[in-house]
Amino acid sequence: MAKNNQLENIRHSCSHLLAMAVIRLFPKAKLGIGPAIENGFYYDFEFKKAIVEEDLKKIEKEMKKIQKEKIKFEKKEITPKEAKELFKNQPYKLELIKDLEKEGNKKISLYKSGDFIDLCKGPHVGNSSKIGPFKLLSLAGAYWKGSEKNKMLTRIYGTCFEDKKELDEYLKMLEEAKKRDHRELNKTLKLYLLSDEIGQGLPILLPNGAIIAEELEKWAKKTEEKWGYVRVLTPHIAKEELFKKTGHIPYYLESMFPSMKMEEKTNEENDIYYLKPMNCSMHNLVYKSEIRSYRDLPLRIAEYGAVYRYEKSGELHGLMRVRGPIHQNDAHIFCAEEQAEEEFGKVMELHQYYYNALGLTKEDYFLSFATRGKNNKNKFIGDEKMWKRAEKITLGFIKKSKIPYEIEEGGAVFYGPKIDFNIRTITGKVFSASTNQIDFFIPKIFGLKYIDKDGKEKTPVCIHRAPLGAHVRFIAFLAEHFAGAFPLWLSPIQVIVIPITDKQKDYAQKITGRLKEEGIRVKLESRNQTASLKIREAEIQKTPYMIIVGEKEVKAKNINIRARGGKVIGNMKLDKFISLLREKIDKKRQI
Amino acid sequence: MAKNNQLENIRHSCSHLLAMAVIRLFPKAKLGIGPAIENGFYYDFEFKKAIVEEDLKKIEKEMKKIQKEKIKFEKKEITPKEAKELFKNQPYKLELIKDLEKEGNKKISLYKSGDFIDLCKGPHVGNSSKIGPFKLLSLAGAYWKGSEKNKMLTRIYGTCFEDKKELDEYLKMLEEAKKRDHRELNKTLKLYLLSDEIGQGLPILLPNGAIIAEELEKWAKKTEEKWGYVRVLTPHIAKEELFKKTGHIPYYLESMFPSMKMEEKTNEENDIYYLKPMNCSMHNLVYKSEIRSYRDLPLRIAEYGAVYRYEKSGELHGLMRVRGPIHQNDAHIFCAEEQAEEEFGKVMELHQYYYNALGLTKEDYFLSFATRGKNNKNKFIGDEKMWKRAEKITLGFIKKSKIPYEIEEGGAVFYGPKIDFNIRTITGKVFSASTNQIDFFIPKIFGLKYIDKDGKEKTPVCIHRAPLGAHVRFIAFLAEHFAGAFPLWLSPIQVIVIPITDKQKDYAQKITGRLKEEGIRVKLESRNQTASLKIREAEIQKTPYMIIVGEKEVKAKNINIRARGGKVIGNMKLDKFISLLREKIDKKRQI
Repeated sequence: MAKNNQLENIRHSCSHLLAMAVIRLFPKAKLGIGPAIENGFYYDFEFKKAIVEEDLKKIEKEMKKIQKEKIKFEKKEITPKEAKELFKNQPYKLELIKDLEKEGNKKISLYKSGDFIDLCKGPHVGNSSKIGPFKLLSLAGAYWKGSEKNKMLTRIYGTCFEDKKELDEYLKMLEEAKKRDHRELNKTLKLYLLSDEIGQGLPILLPNGAIIAEELEKWAKKTEEKWGYVRVLTPHIAKEELFKKTGHIPYYLESMFPSMKMEEKTNEENDIYYLKPMNCSMHNLVYKSEIRSYRDLPLRIAEYGAVYRYEKSGELHGLMRVRGPIHQNDAHIFCAEEQAEEEFGKVMELHQYYYNALGLTKEDYFLSFATRGKNNKNKFIGDEKMWKRAEKITLGFIKKSKIPYEIEEGGAVFYGPKIDFNIRTITGKVFSASTNQIDFFIPKIFGLKYIDKDGKEKTPVCIHRAPLGAHVRFIAFLAEHFAGAFPLWLSPIQVIVIPITDKQKDYAQKITGRLKEEGIRVKLESRNQTASLKIREAEIQKTPYMIIVGEKEVKAKNINIRARGGKVIGNMKLDKFISLLREKIDKKRQI
Repeated sequence: MAKNNQLENIRHSCSHLLAMAVIRLFPKAKLGIGPAIENGFYYDFEFKKAIVEEDLKKIEKEMKKIQKEKIKFEKKEITPKEAKELFKNQPYKLELIKDLEKEGNKKISLYKSGDFIDLCKGPHVGNSSKIGPFKLLSLAGAYWKGSEKNKMLTRIYGTCFEDKKELDEYLKMLEEAKKRDHRELNKTLKLYLLSDEIGQGLPILLPNGAIIAEELEKWAKKTEEKWGYVRVLTPHIAKEELFKKTGHIPYYLESMFPSMKMEEKTNEENDIYYLKPMNCSMHNLVYKSEIRSYRDLPLRIAEYGAVYRYEKSGELHGLMRVRGPIHQNDAHIFCAEEQAEEEFGKVMELHQYYYNALGLTKEDYFLSFATRGKNNKNKFIGDEKMWKRAEKITLGFIKKSKIPYEIEEGGAVFYGPKIDFNIRTITGKVFSASTNQIDFFIPKIFGLKYIDKDGKEKTPVCIHRAPLGAHVRFIAFLAEHFAGAFPLWLSPIQVIVIPITDKQKDYAQKITGRLKEEGIRVKLESRNQTASLKIREAEIQKTPYMIIVGEKEVKAKNINIRARGGKVIGNMKLDKFISLLREKIDKKRQI
């Protein structure tokens, strides 16, 4: 939604302006829909012949022409029958009219602007000259009605503001966002690889990306060991029955990969396997593998579990939104009900520990609390009492915490309410970094028990949590947050050693060897290029430190250091530099 | 095969003896086959009603009775037609007769012993009293002709020797092997969990097993970083086309999980995915993601990649043989052809480094060299010249090395010859721990190139290697090798602290806290039980060290230490003990 109604009107009218221009230039184009959206608008078309980015300029020119023609926007209402006649050459509009008719609408609302008529509820601005300054931004593929079962249309995105200054500011911000876009940064940083040969949304983490994943993982494992977690390693697949038990089938089936049918191998017809979309079912089995006593609780079972989720191809986005592998910093805490609030509180604390360590402030994240909402109870499982209890505990905690939060009606997971930690990137993108739930449902379904102090069998509560979320998403976020200049401890290459001429190669080699021994990720830049070129390249790579060695350094047995961003640190002994590095890495806070 | 012909005759005759006894006791049983095997024999039956372990005693008793009856073994030859009439009530024998007929056999060989007639080429002992002392060992399910598409029969295993002493020795060895069997050890060590709810051959590593996996992985990652490897993280699934390109489809399809058909989700009919059975295809794509120069070679791309392989259910065996996840210490080395021999040599050295560090000696492992063999070239891919080159380099290296080796004709991977490192467990079980190949085929198929010094494009060679193999198999081996008493650095719990009475709990708590800070895996045993019971339990758990604290230790501000196996180390200061532990852990050699 646009920020205010006036802006929304302008943007919606601008989408009609776009459609008018397209029809003038490509009379055979078929029209989809064209709404105002946050920050702009779009319109979907089916073109006879695919258009390219270059065509946007032509369309924009035509739009400006029409804008000046002061064409009036006029509302009309006709019967469905008349509408079907009017749009007989527009199959997508026809489909929409039929949908409206099915819903019982006796009147169909239209907007006419010059020769152009669109199916539309409005409202619009008075005439085309009232549309503010605009800009077409990009082309994308989009399935009709968002379903991959339908045809893919061409979506043209644009934006429009009330005045030129606002538009320019927005475009400048987009420019900055583009530079920070992890897909753009990836071209120089080489963090990941998407390959058509593997399939859509299935990235490989290249050596640089794998180093960051490994560092995050080491850090999380060490941290959570201190916080009392034990670790397991579970399979990526399991039988259909297991996911039926947890309710993932049918409630989450849409987001799961297609099945593997063992009958291809054996005679067993009902032997069907799925890639797991979540780790919880397996951690429940770990809990259940022994008789548990109140003394064992809380039992915190953790795993960097890799899950797979089917996302529509249009929703895939670099490392931010993938199909897999989603290596989650996952865990399930099994505890007595009376421990649940305290444990949930600790989970929240743990999130804040991680975020503080990464230098994120409270401006960078907020909570959202997702409930069942009112009208879609069939999307959820479990009884009323359980939901009320879970909602009470979680909401109680949120209110106590000082983190801002939003309520998201109807966004709960099928088995319980959830609290998401949402991170806002510097360019305003918001994504869910971690999901947390108190779950009364799954322990019950699995028949989990513990023997309490009084000798009675009781059912534990399960807390789902995943601070740092998935490797891929978190790496993408960090790349954008730091504009590629990762903190020292996460930098794939921490130090680059640059000899000024060939004469210093031996000395440079010695320094490199020493740093390697100390566990520093170091690279010797020994190509026959000028030192200034090598420094420039290291800057592009956002390498935290450059050691430059010339004759002076060889004689003085020291090194000359520059930090990224052109900051000259000057000369010092290698030993001193190593201890500075170690200190920074151990603090994990410095950039 | 039995060690000599005489022993084989005895065992084969003993399998007939078994069948005779079964038919006397269960006249409606249908007969499968009954060969002599290494260390004994078996016979497959289809019973009307399933038999249980208890029945083996009854059968054994009947066998002993028949043995004394001195029943003669007589050979006969009849026509297929006569044979079919004779075995008309034995469907499996009938099928075998038809197979023999199809192969063009005009005569069918039988052995008659009393009323019992079996389809058999022989030879046999003269009469049943010549069969040596025997013992029935176990029951198992076995598919007819080894195919899961067929009915499952009941296999009875037994053994038989020339004299009583040999039999007793063998049974004693079996007893010892059973105690060391990782499936047996797992009952107390709790390394893994197999759950029907997840599926066959898909183990979970429980916290104790996950610690060992994690320690092995950390060690291998650190080691291979020093040896010049870079790491990546790749998906567990990929498109069918990728596996067609590598030749896994069709050459390895039998060992792959069934497909996932995306048409369940979209309209794309040919969008089919598979779980990867090997990591190589993905590492090839990493190589190909950049232009490579001779300066980049050798490029060693490593990953603890998790693969999945379809194994027949009858072949699954605890952690030794699973379907997945098989987390392999995998890597692919891309190098110029002239570097291949040196790189292959380094791979061999790396294996020996690992094995030495684990305390394995040359008695514990041997090499096998698998070639194409003579008569099954259609199982292999690539041209003659490539195979010859690959065989020459690999065999050349083996001959130079001082490790004993065997030649396995026809056992090559479909794309090249291989060298396996085979480990022999203390009880004589042999398994392949790591497979290594020089591969000229896959780099060619993927169009991999590098720019050589002369500016020309050349194709690199790929070396496949996986020392330490898969987590699961290696953990199972180590469990059996050490009879559960893992070296200190791999032990899930390294130290257990046992206060003698409640009065020392605070002191014990302090010691535990301090050890935890030092990164030692320590457990405080604070239950209200006697110290002697706690010590006994720690012995069963094979915990390397027990710290026992009584009033004396509290007063002297020191600790009393016992090592596993009842060895009393005595009193010392905690600081001294910590530095002893650290030293042992860093050496990674002490048990």
